[in-house]
Parts: sequence; C-alpha cells; structure tokens
Amino acid sequence: MEVPMRQRFEEYIFGLQEEIITSFERLDPNAPTFKRDSWLRAQGGKGVSGIFSVPPPGDALPAPQTVLEKAGVNISVVHGMLPPAAIKEMRADHSSIPYEENTSLPFFAAGISLVVHPRNPHAPTVHANYRYFEITEKATEDEGTGKVIAWWFGGGCDLTPSYLYEEDARHFHTTLQNTCNQHGEELYPAFKKWCDEYFYIVHRQETRGIGGLFFDDLSTETHARLSDDVERPRSPEEIFGFIKALGNSFVPSYLPIVERRMSMPSTDQHRRWQLLRRGRYVEFNLVYDRGTRFGLKTPSARIESILMSLPETARWEYMSDMGSDLESEEGRLVAVLKQPIDWAGLEKSL
Amino acid sequence: MEVPMRQRFEEYIFGLQEEIITSFERLDPNAPTFKRDSWLRAQGGKGVSGIFSVPPPGDALPAPQTVLEKAGVNISVVHGMLPPAAIKEMRADHSSIPYEENTSLPFFAAGISLVVHPRNPHAPTVHANYRYFEITEKATEDEGTGKVIAWWFGGGCDLTPSYLYEEDARHFHTTLQNTCNQHGEELYPAFKKWCDEYFYIVHRQETRGIGGLFFDDLSTETHARLSDDVERPRSPEEIFGFIKALGNSFVPSYLPIVERRMSMPSTDQHRRWQLLRRGRYVEFNLVYDRGTRFGLKTPSARIESILMSLPETARWEYMSDMGSDLESEEGRLVAVLKQPIDWAGLEKSL
Repeated sequence: MEVPMRQRFEEYIFGLQEEIITSFERLDPNAPTFKRDSWLRAQGGKGVSGIFSVPPPGDALPAPQTVLEKAGVNISVVHGMLPPAAIKEMRADHSSIPYEENTSLPFFAAGISLVVHPRNPHAPTVHANYRYFEITEKATEDEGTGKVIAWWFGGGCDLTPSYLYEEDARHFHTTLQNTCNQHGEELYPAFKKWCDEYFYIVHRQETRGIGGLFFDDLSTETHARLSDDVERPRSPEEIFGFIKALGNSFVPSYLPIVERRMSMPSTDQHRRWQLLRRGRYVEFNLVYDRGTRFGLKTPSARIESILMSLPETARWEYMSDMGSDLESEEGRLVAVLKQPIDWAGLEKSL
Repeated sequence: MEVPMRQRFEEYIFGLQEEIITSFERLDPNAPTFKRDSWLRAQGGKGVSGIFSVPPPGDALPAPQTVLEKAGVNISVVHGMLPPAAIKEMRADHSSIPYEENTSLPFFAAGISLVVHPRNPHAPTVHANYRYFEITEKATEDEGTGKVIAWWFGGGCDLTPSYLYEEDARHFHTTLQNTCNQHGEELYPAFKKWCDEYFYIVHRQETRGIGGLFFDDLSTETHARLSDDVERPRSPEEIFGFIKALGNSFVPSYLPIVERRMSMPSTDQHRRWQLLRRGRYVEFNLVYDRGTRFGLKTPSARIESILMSLPETARWEYMSDMGSDLESEEGRLVAVLKQPIDWAGLEKSL
C-alpha cells in the first residue's frame, strides 16, 4: 500500500529537525545542547520543540559566551476540523475544495519552523518554515482518514542580518537559487519576490531582512504566481522532492555564514544595533506575521511555540541616530532593506 | 466670545505636559532633562514629544544610573478629514453624527499620552492618556471651523508593576477613585472595570498590569457603560472639569510610588523579571492596543511618537520558569494579573 503523503512528510520533518539541531550542536560543542520538548494537543496533534537558550547572567554567573543566543527548531503535526469561514477563504487558491455553508471539514497540518538568533552582532538571524496542509472528506466509520480533497505545501527561508556582508547574502541566495533551479527556473525569482513582499514592515517602510524564499499553495493546481506553461514541480512526488531539497539546503545555506561570523570581534555599539534590529523583528512578527497573528487568535494554540520566534532581548530607542547615516555600517544595511537587491544575480555578474 | 473647547483643552494639555515633565526632572536632578521635540504634521497638526532617554552604555561609558530608563510625555493636536467608514463606526456611540455615504467630515483630535518606564525593577511602569475628539460640519468660506456636530473625551491611567506592592496599588487606585468620586460615584467602578477589560492580553490570559481607569465617548450623550439616572459630569464644562481633575491627579497618583521604589536594592533576577514583563508590555501594545494598531496603519502617522510607548529593553524566554511558582514574588504578581483586585475597596476594608 502507498504510504500517504502526510506520513511521509511527517517522517521527513522529524529527520530534518534532528539534522539541523545536531549541526548547531556540533558547531558549538561546549554550549548546552538543545532542549527537546515534546507536547500533545488536547484537540488532536503533537509536536517537538527543539529549544536553545542559556541561563541568563545571574548575580554570580558570568555572561554566557555561546554561539547561539536563542533558537527554536520546532515540529508540529496537528489535525482537527476547519470551520466554514476558513474553508471559504482557502477556496480562492484551491478550487477543488467544495464549499457548503455551515459545513466543516477535517484538516491535517504538519510543519517544521525554525528561528535562530546568534549572539554575535555580525552573524545574521535566520528563519525557515516548511509545511504540508491537507483537507479531507469526513471519514466513514471504517476509515481512519477520509479521502483527500485538497493539499498543498508552503514554506520558505529568509535571512536577517544586523550588519550587511555581501558575501553572506550572496551565499545564502545562491544556495537557495541553485536548489530551486534543479526544479524549474521560475521558482527562485517568483519566491524571492514573494519573500521581499511578505516580510515588509509597512510602518517602517523596510523589509525585515535581506529576504530569501517565501511561497504557499504549491500543489498540482494552477498557481497564482507561477506560469502554467513553464517547468515546475507538478506531481505530489515532484513537489515533495522540491520541498525536501529546500529543507536539506538549510544547513549548507546558513551554517557557513555563522561559522564565518561567530568569532568576529564586536563592540557595544554593534550589540546595541543588533538589539535595535531585533526590536524590528519583534515588530514584524507581532504586527504582521500571518502565522503568529493566526496563532495568537487560536484559543487552543501553544503560545510558547508561537512566540519562540522572538529574540531573547530587543531594544527600542526614540528617534535613534543609529542607521540614519547611510554611509555608516548600519546605514548600509538599512539601504538594502528599503531597496531589495538581486543577490543571486549579483553573484552571476561578478 | 466664548473660547472653544478645542482651544481650552489644547492649552490645558500643554500645561499638564510641562508640569509632569518638570516633576520627573525634579525627582532626579542629576539625570539628563527631557528632550522636547516639536513636530508638524504636513496634513494638519502639530505636537511636542517630551522624551527621556540616556545614552546606552558605550564601550567606554558606564551603565546609566538614572531613576527613569525611558519615558515619553507627548502632546498631539491634529485635524483633517474623517473618511465615511470611520464616521459610520463612530455613529454607534454618537448618534448626533449624520451619516451620508461617501461624505467625509472634518475632525479635530488633541491629546496627551505618556508612558514612563523607571529603571528600578521595583518601580512600576505607568501609562496615561487624556484626549478630546471633535467632528464638525464643513466650514463655510468665512468660518475657520464648522459647527461642532459631535465631541467627546476619552482617556485613562494604568499601572504596570513587575513586583507587586499592595501599598502602591492601593495608593494608585484610591487616588484615582477619590478624584472620580468628586464627579460621581459611578465613574470609578465603571472605568476601573473597563480598564481591566481593555488591557487584557488574550493569548497570555492575563492583564497587562494592575489596572486603573479607561474610558471613552464621554459627552452629553447617553453612555453605553454609565446609567442615565446617576450623578456624573454631563455638560461640556463638567466633563472638562472631570478630565482636568484626572490629569492633575497623575503626579500625586504616581510620583510617590516611584520615590518609594527608585532606590530599592535589586538583583539580576529582579531585572530579568522586569525585562520579561516588558516583553509582555510590547506584546500588548503591538498586538492589541487600538491606538497603536490604528497608528501603525495610518500612512501619515508619526511612527516614533506611536512607538515611544515601547520599553528600552524587553526580553523573551521559552517556557520561562519565572512567575510560575505562585508563592514566589514573581508569581504573586501573575496571580493578580489573572484575577484583578478591587484595590480601592481593599483600602476601605483595612
């Protein structure tokens, strides 16, 4: 019997979580290991949070010197009933979903979601998320799960530096581009653009970071942002293959950057700027991020998992002078947040 | 000729701003003074931000030792045109506003808004806001301002400690209660309850702080939360008198508390808990606060004034152990955030 996609994806993300956590643990063998925190959802589902944090400098303890400051590499696999209003909204991108007023349908959602905030102000924060969503018919008595009506994958990966190193930006974007290009030449440009649009802090008129990929609704159906006539993953097998390739590219896209930056000398001014940038990260996540806002509104949601994306420390200054001089190191970052760069194209032209 | 309310209120809040700033400056004569930052709004209006902050500990600078860590005491006086959708919404509480589709009406809004974050973890954060709103007819050529169609006052004041001192909570609430009671016995209980409801962090299932007053839509019209048959300020003169009494009670309600707490010894653990509580403050303001969210969505809004309410530093820990032991100092605070207390009533019964 064919193994259902939900099960295959679940197995994949559990393996990926372990691989990613282990990579960070190897990078900093003297640091505490990630804490694996398993949880169950009363309404149906489970998860494992993989959390890195260090005891704060206590009255007697010295300040911690780990590579990472705070990180979460989380899995969640949940299922339940989708209310009619949510179904109606999803029909826009998934015409295969039938809509009958007042009818709920079973859903299944599994995903890996990670945010890593390194300690060194020269090392960028990274975020990645890959997820699979399924809507099924109501199960009859002798089935465990009803027939699949609609399914799709979504995800992405993006980098948020406090200080701009073009070498890092190019490495990150070309790694993602190379991975995408194995599955179709249109994927990277479409999802890079989507990422710049999604991670935009309207009230600051700047992006959260220097981008990466963002996508949703990837299935066999027509896609609003992809041409129908170009090469792209189309079958469930091809799309799953694309998602796995992206998941597997996380470590090679990010770890070399942290390795390069984690031991760089830094000043209190660098730290101050890093904390101001983390303030912006908090602003984006609490004000705009769809997943976070949806989670905060869900009565049964696991708040600690949703808010693990927030940095350990963030800072706000009124009319801060940092970053306003466009010739400064800080200003150079702000410039690219106001005008996203084609980092992978830059690589090619060099 | 009678002086219009908008002008009288504007004069009042400019005086109050100066009085409040001066009180804080006198409390800590060695600290830098507040920075007065005047601004103009291109679309119509002006303001003065009164900001306290200290240069962050630089590479050579020692950590600052001021009483306040970050504070803003801001005035804004703006006017413009209210779009039909906003007018429609306001009609719910102000039946005197005519509604014609596609018709915009002139508005005037003036207010004082303050947030004070002291440095000592034993000294509470405070927030206060008093505002006057007016909708007028469109002005004819020979008038400066059209006839007033609707007007109302709103505001409030609330306290957010990291550590609970009943003495402080009682002092704050009884000061507000005594002020209210001069204008009607129903005001304090109604607006205290409204405050506990408004400053509720749904996803944390706790209030932001230990409350105070919150109210809106106070005018000669029927009020949704006040009985029609009890004593309360009803004429413009009476309501303005009530607002002034509340504004004037800010300094006596808060300053004695800071004075008591500002020199208390504190540990790194106290500071850590204070920063975690400031994280919650950020969560409330960015996720729920109506004024903040409205401001962030307004294209011409002054972001620096809106976000001056955020603390200088905030902290997030995954599954923090602090506050979970209800017998601890931290847990005692959490308990009253989950179950608001009648602090002024407590006073009476002692």
